[in-house]
Amino acid sequence: MISFKNDYSEGAHPKILKTLTETNLEQAEGYGLDRFCLEAATLIRNRTGREDVDVHFLSGGTQTNLIAISSFLRTHEAAIAAESGHIFVHEAGAIESTGHKVIAVGSREGKITPEQIQPVLDFHTDEHMVKPRLVYLSNPTELGTVYSRQELEAFRSFCDDRSLLLYVDGARLGSALCVPEADLDLGSMAALTDAFYIGGTKCGALIGEALVIRTPSLKQDFRFFLKQKGALLSKGRLMGIQFLELFRDDLYFELARHANRMAGLLKNALKESGFEFLTDSPTNQIFPILPNPLIEDLKKSFDFYVWSTIDESHSSIRLVTSWATREEDVTALIKAIEKGRNLR
Amino acid sequence: MISFKNDYSEGAHPKILKTLTETNLEQAEGYGLDRFCLEAATLIRNRTGREDVDVHFLSGGTQTNLIAISSFLRTHEAAIAAESGHIFVHEAGAIESTGHKVIAVGSREGKITPEQIQPVLDFHTDEHMVKPRLVYLSNPTELGTVYSRQELEAFRSFCDDRSLLLYVDGARLGSALCVPEADLDLGSMAALTDAFYIGGTKCGALIGEALVIRTPSLKQDFRFFLKQKGALLSKGRLMGIQFLELFRDDLYFELARHANRMAGLLKNALKESGFEFLTDSPTNQIFPILPNPLIEDLKKSFDFYVWSTIDESHSSIRLVTSWATREEDVTALIKAIEKGRNLR
Amino acid sequence: MISFKNDYSEGAHPKILKTLTETNLEQAEGYGLDRFCLEAATLIRNRTGREDVDVHFLSGGTQTNLIAISSFLRTHEAAIAAESGHIFVHEAGAIESTGHKVIAVGSREGKITPEQIQPVLDFHTDEHMVKPRLVYLSNPTELGTVYSRQELEAFRSFCDDRSLLLYVDGARLGSALCVPEADLDLGSMAALTDAFYIGGTKCGALIGEALVIRTPSLKQDFRFFLKQKGALLSKGRLMGIQFLELFRDDLYFELARHANRMAGLLKNALKESGFEFLTDSPTNQIFPILPNPLIEDLKKSFDFYVWSTIDESHSSIRLVTSWATREEDVTALIKAIEKGRNLR
Amino acid sequence: MISFKNDYSEGAHPKILKTLTETNLEQAEGYGLDRFCLEAATLIRNRTGREDVDVHFLSGGTQTNLIAISSFLRTHEAAIAAESGHIFVHEAGAIESTGHKVIAVGSREGKITPEQIQPVLDFHTDEHMVKPRLVYLSNPTELGTVYSRQELEAFRSFCDDRSLLLYVDGARLGSALCVPEADLDLGSMAALTDAFYIGGTKCGALIGEALVIRTPSLKQDFRFFLKQKGALLSKGRLMGIQFLELFRDDLYFELARHANRMAGLLKNALKESGFEFLTDSPTNQIFPILPNPLIEDLKKSFDFYVWSTIDESHSSIRLVTSWATREEDVTALIKAIEKGRNLR
Repeated sequence: MISFKNDYSEGAHPKILKTLTETNLEQAEGYGLDRFCLEAATLIRNRTGREDVDVHFLSGGTQTNLIAISSFLRTHEAAIAAESGHIFVHEAGAIESTGHKVIAVGSREGKITPEQIQPVLDFHTDEHMVKPRLVYLSNPTELGTVYSRQELEAFRSFCDDRSLLLYVDGARLGSALCVPEADLDLGSMAALTDAFYIGGTKCGALIGEALVIRTPSLKQDFRFFLKQKGALLSKGRLMGIQFLELFRDDLYFELARHANRMAGLLKNALKESGFEFLTDSPTNQIFPILPNPLIEDLKKSFDFYVWSTIDESHSSIRLVTSWATREEDVTALIKAIEKGRNLR
Repeated sequence: MISFKNDYSEGAHPKILKTLTETNLEQAEGYGLDRFCLEAATLIRNRTGREDVDVHFLSGGTQTNLIAISSFLRTHEAAIAAESGHIFVHEAGAIESTGHKVIAVGSREGKITPEQIQPVLDFHTDEHMVKPRLVYLSNPTELGTVYSRQELEAFRSFCDDRSLLLYVDGARLGSALCVPEADLDLGSMAALTDAFYIGGTKCGALIGEALVIRTPSLKQDFRFFLKQKGALLSKGRLMGIQFLELFRDDLYFELARHANRMAGLLKNALKESGFEFLTDSPTNQIFPILPNPLIEDLKKSFDFYVWSTIDESHSSIRLVTSWATREEDVTALIKAIEKGRNLR
Repeated sequence: MISFKNDYSEGAHPKILKTLTETNLEQAEGYGLDRFCLEAATLIRNRTGREDVDVHFLSGGTQTNLIAISSFLRTHEAAIAAESGHIFVHEAGAIESTGHKVIAVGSREGKITPEQIQPVLDFHTDEHMVKPRLVYLSNPTELGTVYSRQELEAFRSFCDDRSLLLYVDGARLGSALCVPEADLDLGSMAALTDAFYIGGTKCGALIGEALVIRTPSLKQDFRFFLKQKGALLSKGRLMGIQFLELFRDDLYFELARHANRMAGLLKNALKESGFEFLTDSPTNQIFPILPNPLIEDLKKSFDFYVWSTIDESHSSIRLVTSWATREEDVTALIKAIEKGRNLR
Repeated sequence: MISFKNDYSEGAHPKILKTLTETNLEQAEGYGLDRFCLEAATLIRNRTGREDVDVHFLSGGTQTNLIAISSFLRTHEAAIAAESGHIFVHEAGAIESTGHKVIAVGSREGKITPEQIQPVLDFHTDEHMVKPRLVYLSNPTELGTVYSRQELEAFRSFCDDRSLLLYVDGARLGSALCVPEADLDLGSMAALTDAFYIGGTKCGALIGEALVIRTPSLKQDFRFFLKQKGALLSKGRLMGIQFLELFRDDLYFELARHANRMAGLLKNALKESGFEFLTDSPTNQIFPILPNPLIEDLKKSFDFYVWSTIDESHSSIRLVTSWATREEDVTALIKAIEKGRNLR
């Protein structure tokens, strides 16, 4: 059984394990104050091209979102997200658990626009309602689509005009920044958002996300929030070493490109076979629409999620590639699809 | 500089890194449903000698404490802890952050007794005060001391009579269970508590604690709490593989015994040199009382915490050994102390 | 300026003020344990025809909703409400502030059905999402419509089958129970819900809502929640005396009938004048659709909310009558509408 | 049975009830925007002698404390209070319920000093602990004692130097400001604190406390917090009318002086009879130490709290007088004590 179920099926890139092993007995400071974390943070700062960002390492996406958002907001303030947004749907109410409402807006292929947010602001006019304060985007979105620099600039401008914070969930940020048409990089991400995170877990790390905070007022006392929410690891070195390897020689982007390329091979083959897609995703998650009998056939040899029902005889499936996806497995899947093309 | 600052200065036991590396490309389920986690949980269940406990893997002690305690308590219920207890002092208000008061009681060498808790119950009589509901112990305590089976049985009986839950923080549980005079094991821990956790981070793992829940009502929906608080790791395999190695051949206890033995060497040498201790700790943390000039001298070559001021010319320091502490480093420290014995 | 803006523009029914004055110097127990509260609770229990309900008095609707719902739910559980529901829109995120997500479902004239809730249950399948646990209805709804006994029975049956709690916000419950076609009373409300509240503030009291809890597990320790959330008044007598007067001789229902009758006069006159309504409300809130110029004209002499834009030349307005609305004021408004009928 | 149990045994001063009745049918704005609230706020501002304070009306002390403190603090910040402080002991964990730890310091007769707070600041040095941020005093204290202007100035200076907020719980503020030796008034309270509240419930109102906020950053969006925590009453007029009467002609202070005078009569008589007191309280709560048999005898005709055990044959009791305490009842109690003087 070959899995295209997600991009966290395998462990870490071998370089990471190698360095973990080589540095294993070096005694290091605890709680993220070790030299690895400090160096990794410097590397990331360098990649953003600015000295004025704070970098913190956390264990996972939900943890990062909940700590960032709850520390950025005052009690009565709310986040705005796509109705398909991870914080709205798939984090077990983590944001609400910290006391904040998430206001959902309709999305198109997982993406939202400032125009969709304006009515939320128009509606929330007084103290009988929450106060919308933070726009949550994910890049790429839950449906694999990406934001362009122009789109992010529009959000920045919109947020500036309305005293809103802009926060980007980058669980798969590498993938978004490495699509062929990409015009965003870590520098523009830092410049255009108040904070964003660089997802490690889904791009070659065993565990770990790097939160980058640019806006000064959001930086203050942030380590308190890490500690209070259980995110300050005593062996912070585990985080530092991983991000050091990922950013020392741009391994992070190399791995993301590989994942994108593997998904691209699948996508092109499926297109050539005449299949359509739920969304036009250039990243490492694609959502082809297949006849149900073909899906059943594929399930015998491949693992993946059936995503949504399209009509009575078709469903969309989610195929995810990772830094570790082997081209031969992609080829095997393509062959299986071609072979089953007549199953309908 | 040799560090006796804590037991999380080094990485993981090599067997763990080896298995992480060997299994790295095996595709596994996400979110703790992988075969490694399942097998590790089974191993731990076996070591408790009972089938009726649930085992969950979390990232760190504060995270484990806050998720366990906040899910075990209703809104108005409070935890009771030693005034030196980790949740009362050193978790940045993590428990209060989930809405629950921690009631402190005086302690002796970090330990508390049921007799100290009874007045808390007597005092909290009605709805104008919180309702004490959970007793929090740590074993070993913050000061290295341990509870005996008899003491834990007394707590169990006390808690049963008063409808209290008993929860044990085992950040360094291995050390407590491996002291020469130990009469507690994982079986008695599971039998005598409602829940407890087996600390991995401070006993040979890179990251990870194993929470063991015996009381049925506390088990329900626990994975929701993990997810909601940001503790459900997508690459749960990282947890499973580590605990698999730690419990496959009792490596966990072997490492704890090593750490205890190293601390014991230090302790004996210090005793023979005539020094006294803040507490009578049999575990891997000891708190010798030294003249301040000697402390200053030691600081030149060794890293450790100065714990508390004893009098104007003496302080207690904390020396911590780990699974990785080398006997030669212990010997070096002993020599340095003996050499500096006349510094006062 | 005559106000039809809401049903809390005036003070309390004179009988209430009279009894407050007459009993003013009687020394009473504090915190809701006074004889007035005890007697008022007994009266309400009698009106439900059952001994097994607990009755608590609180200050307002948002307070009642947030304390009830947060005490009924465990951390990971969510409430389900109409997208127009008060807790979803108009309580400044009070429920989320206690840690719980409110899941919105589409509504028709403010009402929802079990059929609309089933998809929510189907969607929320695992610990990556919140666990839907409580259905929140308001009767009457935000749009003045009411639930029938049959509809509430359907909810009860639905909730029983799916382990859901059913909670009804009765901010204007008197109005709902006193519509001509009403087939619900306090007895059926208690029988069919797990808990509900009888709104006093909007039906003749100065302040106060009576929460009725039937389900035993929800009753436990409830006074702790009242205290912890700041709802336990030291002079609880203020609550007791008011509800004593409201339920001693069914004044509560008498006042509700008056408000309904006043709204009915308005509604009939508007209907006869050919106007349509946003919803078919039989209660004391009606939402006629009027030409904007007429609305502007009415604003000169009457106070009311413009509710929603219908088309470019029409809006709906909200007219609310109360226990204190004078028939002469209703007549004045009717005349003004008739007079301005040609304004369009 | 005559009660000296508390100062909330009776209703409201008759002037309040009279005005409630006279204005009853006047239609007013909802949610504290009525003319009564606006005028009452202006009166209070005038009494503080400054235009720059915000005034909000809330229902009770616990509600006021929890909303003020939780809105003033960021997530990781803590309040510091006397170990006898109301928020630490008698509010059912209300502050912790909003996520904030309350750090207790020892007190003398209910009072604390900056010197007692300094060690708390010295101890809380990093992100492993909460960040102390707000000093909570009550004036008078739980034990009836009061702070002088000099003491409050010392706190102000201390807090300014250490970036701490100073908040005063004035549940019985009238009593504190009206003791003969008082050198504090509403002006100095406003000048020396960041926020404080003027307790109405315990000084002649039926319900209600007036929160006064001076520090600009604490004012922002405060009505959101009121709404979110269930404190924004739809019939806010109830609050406004009461405080209007209390402050129109300084009725508030007149009532406080009466209560103090009644307590003074008791105190003097007890002193003359040779009894000692738990604290030297000049306010309307006194704590005489009586022989247990005398206490038992008094209980037959008077209601009061037995406060604490002094020795095996003596206890302290709490006697509280109110705006409504009749001198004849005080005389009756004095006589009963004199008559039972030999009971020991």
